[in-house]
Amino acid sequence: MASAPSSSSPPTPTPTPTPTRILFGVNESSIRGYPHPSISSRTAFDWTLQKLIRSNAAGFYALFLHVQAPDEDGFDDMDSVYASPDDFKNKNEKQKIKGLYLLQYFVERSHQVGIKCEAWLKMGDPKVVICEEAKRVQPDLLVVGSRGLGPVQRY
Amino acid sequence: MASAPSSSSPPTPTPTPTPTRILFGVNESSIRGYPHPSISSRTAFDWTLQKLIRSNAAGFYALFLHVQAPDEDGFDDMDSVYASPDDFKNKNEKQKIKGLYLLQYFVERSHQVGIKCEAWLKMGDPKVVICEEAKRVQPDLLVVGSRGLGPVQRY
Repeated sequence: MASAPSSSSPPTPTPTPTPTRILFGVNESSIRGYPHPSISSRTAFDWTLQKLIRSNAAGFYALFLHVQAPDEDGFDDMDSVYASPDDFKNKNEKQKIKGLYLLQYFVERSHQVGIKCEAWLKMGDPKVVICEEAKRVQPDLLVVGSRGLGPVQRY
Repeated sequence: MASAPSSSSPPTPTPTPTPTRILFGVNESSIRGYPHPSISSRTAFDWTLQKLIRSNAAGFYALFLHVQAPDEDGFDDMDSVYASPDDFKNKNEKQKIKGLYLLQYFVERSHQVGIKCEAWLKMGDPKVVICEEAKRVQPDLLVVGSRGLGPVQRY
């Protein structure tokens, strides 16, 4: 019995519960374009803050994912001139930078209210990539804005 | 300018934010029967406690709805004898009481963790009545257990 814990042992500290991890799929405004977030992304984030996170910022961890679809119709590039392979590289870099400004909005909002977070960009079809990333990072909750179009396929 | 607030005015008290109202559709265990809650109802409630409500019980208000389907196949009544209209009335009363015991489980769990709540019974098709009640009480969030059968129709 010598090794049994005695009543004078210090109490076992209660383990800090892991924060609830929320993955937000966010996109740019279809009206105002980059760096502005879409109304649905902003609304979904605001709703989550107000209704779920409330005053308990320390209990949550936000993950922001922005998926950029390749510009298939090339509409944005109508006035661009491509004279060398580097021009195409620059185009991708520019799109990335726009995406980063979008993510910055959500990271700054999170910091203002004291929620720890991380954010990242991916290229591809948003409805596919959001599912892939959800499987990979295994959040407790996936929040996406809804325009009633069913943007995310079931997984 | 006499009526303008001066710097010595007492600060306007911050209004207490309304609790987030969560409607839970709960049902009985298909294996153990009343008064035991189904595993999916219990899991959904436990998940919500652990991942959303966390330590912030005062920020939430739980609404528990149990919908009892009429006993269409009469299987439970095989050994019953109905000799008067009152016997049928008693049958409904007995089913109600079983439903109340089920709700009691969730109300007691809520009280244990300090979440204010209310609970009620309805008769009908659960997937229809849950939607009707959700429209009526306008919760911020609807939580139902899932067995992958899609028990709630979209509304």
